Amino acid sequence: MDSFTHFNEQGRAKMVDISDKNETVRTAVAVSSVVVNNDIYEAVRQGAMKKGDVLAVAQVAGVMAAKNTAQIIPMCHPLSLSGVDIAFDWTEEKPSHRLNIRVAVKTKGSTGVEMEALTSASATALTVYDMCKAVDKGMVIGETYLLEKTGGKSGDFKREG
Amino acid sequence: MDSFTHFNEQGRAKMVDISDKNETVRTAVAVSSVVVNNDIYEAVRQGAMKKGDVLAVAQVAGVMAAKNTAQIIPMCHPLSLSGVDIAFDWTEEKPSHRLNIRVAVKTKGSTGVEMEALTSASATALTVYDMCKAVDKGMVIGETYLLEKTGGKSGDFKREG
Amino acid sequence: MDSFTHFNEQGRAKMVDISDKNETVRTAVAVSSVVVNNDIYEAVRQGAMKKGDVLAVAQVAGVMAAKNTAQIIPMCHPLSLSGVDIAFDWTEEKPSHRLNIRVAVKTKGSTGVEMEALTSASATALTVYDMCKAVDKGMVIGETYLLEKTGGKSGDFKREG
Amino acid sequence: MDSFTHFNEQGRAKMVDISDKNETVRTAVAVSSVVVNNDIYEAVRQGAMKKGDVLAVAQVAGVMAAKNTAQIIPMCHPLSLSGVDIAFDWTEEKPSHRLNIRVAVKTKGSTGVEMEALTSASATALTVYDMCKAVDKGMVIGETYLLEKTGGKSGDFKREG
Amino acid sequence: MDSFTHFNEQGRAKMVDISDKNETVRTAVAVSSVVVNNDIYEAVRQGAMKKGDVLAVAQVAGVMAAKNTAQIIPMCHPLSLSGVDIAFDWTEEKPSHRLNIRVAVKTKGSTGVEMEALTSASATALTVYDMCKAVDKGMVIGETYLLEKTGGKSGDFKREG
Amino acid sequence: MDSFTHFNEQGRAKMVDISDKNETVRTAVAVSSVVVNNDIYEAVRQGAMKKGDVLAVAQVAGVMAAKNTAQIIPMCHPLSLSGVDIAFDWTEEKPSHRLNIRVAVKTKGSTGVEMEALTSASATALTVYDMCKAVDKGMVIGETYLLEKTGGKSGDFKREG
Repeated sequence: MDSFTHFNEQGRAKMVDISDKNETVRTAVAVSSVVVNNDIYEAVRQGAMKKGDVLAVAQVAGVMAAKNTAQIIPMCHPLSLSGVDIAFDWTEEKPSHRLNIRVAVKTKGSTGVEMEALTSASATALTVYDMCKAVDKGMVIGETYLLEKTGGKSGDFKREG
Repeated sequence: MDSFTHFNEQGRAKMVDISDKNETVRTAVAVSSVVVNNDIYEAVRQGAMKKGDVLAVAQVAGVMAAKNTAQIIPMCHPLSLSGVDIAFDWTEEKPSHRLNIRVAVKTKGSTGVEMEALTSASATALTVYDMCKAVDKGMVIGETYLLEKTGGKSGDFKREG
Repeated sequence: MDSFTHFNEQGRAKMVDISDKNETVRTAVAVSSVVVNNDIYEAVRQGAMKKGDVLAVAQVAGVMAAKNTAQIIPMCHPLSLSGVDIAFDWTEEKPSHRLNIRVAVKTKGSTGVEMEALTSASATALTVYDMCKAVDKGMVIGETYLLEKTGGKSGDFKREG
Repeated sequence: MDSFTHFNEQGRAKMVDISDKNETVRTAVAVSSVVVNNDIYEAVRQGAMKKGDVLAVAQVAGVMAAKNTAQIIPMCHPLSLSGVDIAFDWTEEKPSHRLNIRVAVKTKGSTGVEMEALTSASATALTVYDMCKAVDKGMVIGETYLLEKTGGKSGDFKREG
Repeated sequence: MDSFTHFNEQGRAKMVDISDKNETVRTAVAVSSVVVNNDIYEAVRQGAMKKGDVLAVAQVAGVMAAKNTAQIIPMCHPLSLSGVDIAFDWTEEKPSHRLNIRVAVKTKGSTGVEMEALTSASATALTVYDMCKAVDKGMVIGETYLLEKTGGKSGDFKREG
Repeated sequence: MDSFTHFNEQGRAKMVDISDKNETVRTAVAVSSVVVNNDIYEAVRQGAMKKGDVLAVAQVAGVMAAKNTAQIIPMCHPLSLSGVDIAFDWTEEKPSHRLNIRVAVKTKGSTGVEMEALTSASATALTVYDMCKAVDKGMVIGETYLLEKTGGKSGDFKREG
């Protein structure tokens, strides 16, 4: 078992030294989702067509959260992200529907971007909740997890189906 | 069906006017969780006992995220929170275990604190992921949702079991 | 002539004491604009119709900047804004076109929201520039000024035509 | 016509991938201005001589805004700026006077610093407004635009007189 | 002995609930200092007279830090400060000199402003160090402490000489 | 005597151009301390053993402040820190005790990390004060200074005993 890397000899949190790590291209993809009722489903979809675009606001929130990850996650290294891309699709279930959120983050740097992708996916989902909560507060943010990553010494990761 | 409140007449996002709303005491409780493997479960629990306390760092992240919610969620009103309290407990499942996160937020203000509680719960879960990801990147952040809220014109909300 | 209020007896910048001022409803409206060439004009307008909505992103930036004004303007008091609303319209000129930006900000507080409205209008204009600069870097952000304000001891202000 | 680069295939905003771009030295110069009445003109100039230095505060605001640009402009890449320099001069007009603001930004990085220069110029102008608004709220922030840039694949840009 | 108030029943950090506390006027005064060599002493003093004003920059940093205290100190409540005032004077000692920093903070709120005053004094001192460190890195930031506070249930505090 | 480097030809603050400086590994160590009474000493030490860990919260604050240094110190360059490590020990004095704070910061970059180490040490000390001030507001934050630095053109620095 690998040991925890975020603690120093006194057992206290530290930001791990990465100055020996190589700068390589690194990518990470994380997913989240929001389960909404039929009223919200209809409203969000129509808004995206006509006006009042919930997902446009959520996507901006997701991009900004990716950039702010090191401010939100205490031991996370600051990184100059080179790209963030957020995509949405719907799974129609009855009586509720699931808005799927997929965030891809890329950088050339000394540490991975898993946290940036996960934090961005969470902020995107939270913003959807905020924009729709006047209709129904019973929405649920679904499981949030890393789908895959590439680059860096620890190698690639791909979630098994 | 209530209409979306975050859009103006041009169908563009706005921050809703709340200057007519009364200042009342408002509370919200949100939950999230992190499903971890047995190695992480043992390490986090021992760390909490001896040294290297993952949950102490996660809790600070959760409190700070509650305060930063209006920076993370674009249309969310800034609020002077009066209290934030985060509690943890474990559900032992096999072969993985679930760390349950429960965040209670309180304020005296003109708008609710649902987003603060949800954002805090998410940031707490994300920080647990960050602190433990050197051991296993397969952790899953569980469903995140509002458990209950009190105060404000829209009345109380309590999630049905 | 009124004296400068942002300096102390040593002639050094200070944040003025407003604890004696009453909490009243205060509003401010500020305007800015961006002059763009015909290519950008067509692209932004079509984007708003179909997909790729420059103004949706700019509007989110404007709302967030209103909330962050006290972080951007050193001697500005932090305020819990109660509402922010941003509207756009076009003045078609030849050969370029002007995108007009109008920001209305409202609060119940001890100091005015002129700076919030002006800062929001600027950030909205800057974001339009950022979103379109791959097409043409020659865009100009037009004059930015306060159109009107209400509330507070210094009374109402309305810009003369 | 170049296409918009800030949108993905779903037509949603993204932060463009720049990981293939070379790190080169990049500079940008942006200008803004503030038109003030004679009372403010005299007060600012005397303040700079004796005490109560409006421009010193504005300049700090401009430098900090340059560093915060990626927080203010949603799709803007975070950059480690290597230098920011802000200069002022006056154009005496009757009955008002124009304070000219010129911001030069430099970095060694994978993307340009136009937005940093423009955002810094805007924040500097907004801060002058804030420091002087107790005297007169009728000040106008003048046109804000890019004067020149160097470095990067898109080549140099120089505004035609 | 009063008990620690920043921990919940699980012994974990929380942000204390202050929603029952009254809104009253609260003030706090904190002091810090920087001990500098004669070269820096001469340069800072001349700069303040002619141009290149170290203390103007430090004062802006101090005001902004007061406003950002709840972002820097994890369990500190966000507060809408009503006023911040920073003053400097010199104690001439041989061979070094002491720049004394005194920060007064005021608010009308539910919790005290001791942390805002102390954080502001520290940021002011740190900025003096930053502005002068090219001359000498041996500067020392002197003792930093609360001089007095007024308002609130815990009563007034005045440091004994 | 070296000249001040933070001012431009107009004598105004600027962020110094570092684009010609080499990227090298740079380290800095800064120290601070907090003098507390016996009640706090006992409580902090027992908390670290059982529950309610003041130092865990302070350490998170210190790491986050190191990352935020360029937001707190106006003319400080933004840096992607590669590591931050904070250690505590006690000097038992009568009737008060001194908690010693030592922060080591490391990066691979174009400018030094002295300000990051000093700012982190200050934030750590301030957070200890915040967590314990319900017991006694008479705590004093001790002298804060640079112990040593390595890397960069200006060479190594080591404080003489």
